[in-house]
Amino acid sequence: MSALTIGLLGFGTVGKGVYETISKHQGRLQAIFGKEVKVSAILVKNVSKHSVPDDDVLLTDDFQEIIELPKLDVVIDAIVGREPGYTYLRQAILRGCHVITANKEMFAFHGSELARLAKEHNVSLGFEATVGGGIPIIQTIKQLLNANKIERIEGILNGTSNFILTSMREENLSFEEALKIAQEKGYAEADPKNDIEGYDAFFKAVVLSELVFGKAPAQETSVREGITDITIEQIRMADSLGLKFKHVASIEREKDAIRCTVKPVLTAEAHPLYRVEGVQNAVSIDADIVGNISLQGPGAGMFPTASAIIEDLIHVGRTDIPSVFEEGKSEWTVLDEPVWIIWGDANAGLPEGCEIISKVSKDVFIFKASLEAVSLLDTSDLKAYQVLGDYAPAVKENKQVQTV
Amino acid sequence: MSALTIGLLGFGTVGKGVYETISKHQGRLQAIFGKEVKVSAILVKNVSKHSVPDDDVLLTDDFQEIIELPKLDVVIDAIVGREPGYTYLRQAILRGCHVITANKEMFAFHGSELARLAKEHNVSLGFEATVGGGIPIIQTIKQLLNANKIERIEGILNGTSNFILTSMREENLSFEEALKIAQEKGYAEADPKNDIEGYDAFFKAVVLSELVFGKAPAQETSVREGITDITIEQIRMADSLGLKFKHVASIEREKDAIRCTVKPVLTAEAHPLYRVEGVQNAVSIDADIVGNISLQGPGAGMFPTASAIIEDLIHVGRTDIPSVFEEGKSEWTVLDEPVWIIWGDANAGLPEGCEIISKVSKDVFIFKASLEAVSLLDTSDLKAYQVLGDYAPAVKENKQVQTV
Ligand SMILES: NC(=O)c1ccc[n+]([C@@H]2O[C@H](COP(=O)([O-])OP(=O)(O)OC[C@H]3O[C@@H](n4cnc5c(N)ncnc54)[C@H](OP(=O)(O)O)[C@@H]3O)[C@@H](O)[C@H]2O)c1
Ligand SMILES: NC(=O)c1ccc[n+]([C@@H]2O[C@H](COP(=O)([O-])OP(=O)(O)OC[C@H]3O[C@@H](n4cnc5c(N)ncnc54)[C@H](OP(=O)(O)O)[C@@H]3O)[C@@H](O)[C@H]2O)c1
Repeated sequence: MSALTIGLLGFGTVGKGVYETISKHQGRLQAIFGKEVKVSAILVKNVSKHSVPDDDVLLTDDFQEIIELPKLDVVIDAIVGREPGYTYLRQAILRGCHVITANKEMFAFHGSELARLAKEHNVSLGFEATVGGGIPIIQTIKQLLNANKIERIEGILNGTSNFILTSMREENLSFEEALKIAQEKGYAEADPKNDIEGYDAFFKAVVLSELVFGKAPAQETSVREGITDITIEQIRMADSLGLKFKHVASIEREKDAIRCTVKPVLTAEAHPLYRVEGVQNAVSIDADIVGNISLQGPGAGMFPTASAIIEDLIHVGRTDIPSVFEEGKSEWTVLDEPVWIIWGDANAGLPEGCEIISKVSKDVFIFKASLEAVSLLDTSDLKAYQVLGDYAPAVKENKQVQTV
Repeated sequence: MSALTIGLLGFGTVGKGVYETISKHQGRLQAIFGKEVKVSAILVKNVSKHSVPDDDVLLTDDFQEIIELPKLDVVIDAIVGREPGYTYLRQAILRGCHVITANKEMFAFHGSELARLAKEHNVSLGFEATVGGGIPIIQTIKQLLNANKIERIEGILNGTSNFILTSMREENLSFEEALKIAQEKGYAEADPKNDIEGYDAFFKAVVLSELVFGKAPAQETSVREGITDITIEQIRMADSLGLKFKHVASIEREKDAIRCTVKPVLTAEAHPLYRVEGVQNAVSIDADIVGNISLQGPGAGMFPTASAIIEDLIHVGRTDIPSVFEEGKSEWTVLDEPVWIIWGDANAGLPEGCEIISKVSKDVFIFKASLEAVSLLDTSDLKAYQVLGDYAPAVKENKQVQTV
């Protein structure tokens, strides 16, 4: 019987993980597909850097050689950047190949277009690896959507920035020191901008927004803010209040638009993301029937990411159950005014409508205010961080806090 | 077009939740199935206690009336106990109906038999609601099994006993006081034995064992121990050591057999189950390729459980991807000797091979020993609890600990 033939784009961390996993678990895959599963061709940028893992595998820097192979069932995208990934996957779908991608940047920009095209051409489109590495987030959300309407997702979607925040707090390091360790350990790239400025998390949030709400987040209300401003002094102060800084992506519906916010916040112990440490990723999903579900696991890495791709591979050729929403049927709960902690001379410039809860020290205040009010803050002198999770009791109990 | 016709067995908490959810989300279900989804008949024990929710629904105490309906596509089991549930679902499968069950006791005993029968008759068998209520544990495990071999599962699978342990610690209550509150809140039955003695968690562990390893746990090595012996003094002592009591079910492979243990243990902060509080359930899954994944959410309740059943309903008629294991291919890691905390006059009767790490007070010791060594303890005078999660650092840091 002829094999299931795969074209693998990229042979870096993820590509190598996929190749090795397919070889190592060939028996399991054969039992599932009833035939051999074979990577026939690998695309790289620089052929001379690589050696062919098996004699009968085509290693090439020319995608045309792959797309014109006489037999090609699945194309797996593990290269970097919006292009040429998008163009290659389009071509693959037009040829009738199933496609799977780990490339979140590309998918954040072109996911809905590829989904439309894949449906039109009756092929599968797998993207489990684009969000949360090895955690089956996409699959779980699809599953929940069958019976639930999802109201909000909050997640720690970038392991590098979470590792940096954890190291700063646990090892008492500066941001720069923690970043350096992350680079030494291979968690952060030489150019870490994507991770620490929140671009990577934002791409993933866009993928989740499209999946859950059927559209991308609104540009006007969306926020992408990194963790580079956080100081060890702020972390220590938060610690003394029982709070931890986390770089949280949140995706929620606001009337007709989707608001997506990637920014550092302070989490209280009751919050599902409070205890997510190191390179771990996690998501907390609020759904109307089931309530809150949270998932945690390895958000990146060679084998966790390969595992997600293999799961997509196994679903190749199976039609998804359509997600259907009854629009306008559920009431969107309006959040109470959130609690914030502000650093700076708050007396000078607190926006109107802020209710001060307590003064922690001469330049640190805890207060309640709407998102809108805080957005009017003059941020050159003041920096406000939102507190997630039920925090009131901790404020009351904290012995150091004096009411203003 | 004719409707998808459902026979609902039981109209208690779960049955009512399913009925209401099907009514409320009829639009969503119709869009998915392309036809009406209709509960045609409901089975109860005592008809006079109930009123028919809709005029055209048959309410009966006679299963024969349901199984002989001219049209019947799906039977949902939300009744209690091993029988008559098993007999009814057998009959339903033999007639060619898809079946879905929330009845974990029945499924723990007859799950593999029903699975065989369902396969033979080419019908679906859904059991998401038997473990972890609304958390999609079964679906996630099936998904992970596609690419991974699962090595161990640890879970907090009974919300009632977790609620009691949390209340004891947080509110400083005795076991009896906490149980009374659980009963007042409707978390515990009038007869709470199933929950507090670990039967309910053990049933769920058996279901997981069958799903993950293809067989039930070995009777000889399995343990089912409740939480009734735990005192508030022990909880306070554990607290001072940075540990929390949790009632944990663990399912793992040991050579050719499956060992399933349901017992109170002490969790250290690093352990994935340490922060699971109140009626929440959670599982932590160790898989060979992806690593550790954990899931947390509502383990019971009317709508979470209904959500799981509706998810199964939506998969009705879809063939599962077969789970295939390559037996004998992975090395089973042998755990280091676990750490234990023992209450009682340990000097008098510590079993051979125990290595004392420190003495916390005159009758509380921390030591290392194999499971086997501890099983030889004379338990009338001594009570040892295993510590889960990396604990060594906390022992070192604890100022109160004096080395023996
Ligand atoms: N690393 C993770 O843990 C992880 C997790 C989830 C998702 N992802 C995503 O997966 C993708 C791959 O990540 P990675 O970590 O494996 O990256 P990587 O180690 O940098 O490898 C990228 C591979 O793609 C090839 N490549 C890049 N641009 C190409 C082009 N224009 N044409 C042909 N080949 C090209 C490179 O070829 P050369 O080897 O010749 O340079 C290299 O083999 C990215 O989109 C990333 O965002 C990564
Ligand atoms: N409650 C949860 O959160 C939850 C979560 C997961 C799984 N489950 C499982 O789901 C099942 C139902 O739980 P529940 O909480 O809904 O129980 P429940 O409130 O006690 O309701 C049980 C229902 O089943 C009917 N029934 C019991 N035995 C019967 C028999 N022999 N013949 C016909 N009808 C019978 C009862 O009829 P009458 O009303 O006439 O007495 C009642 O309507 C159990 O197996 C439970 O373990 C429950």
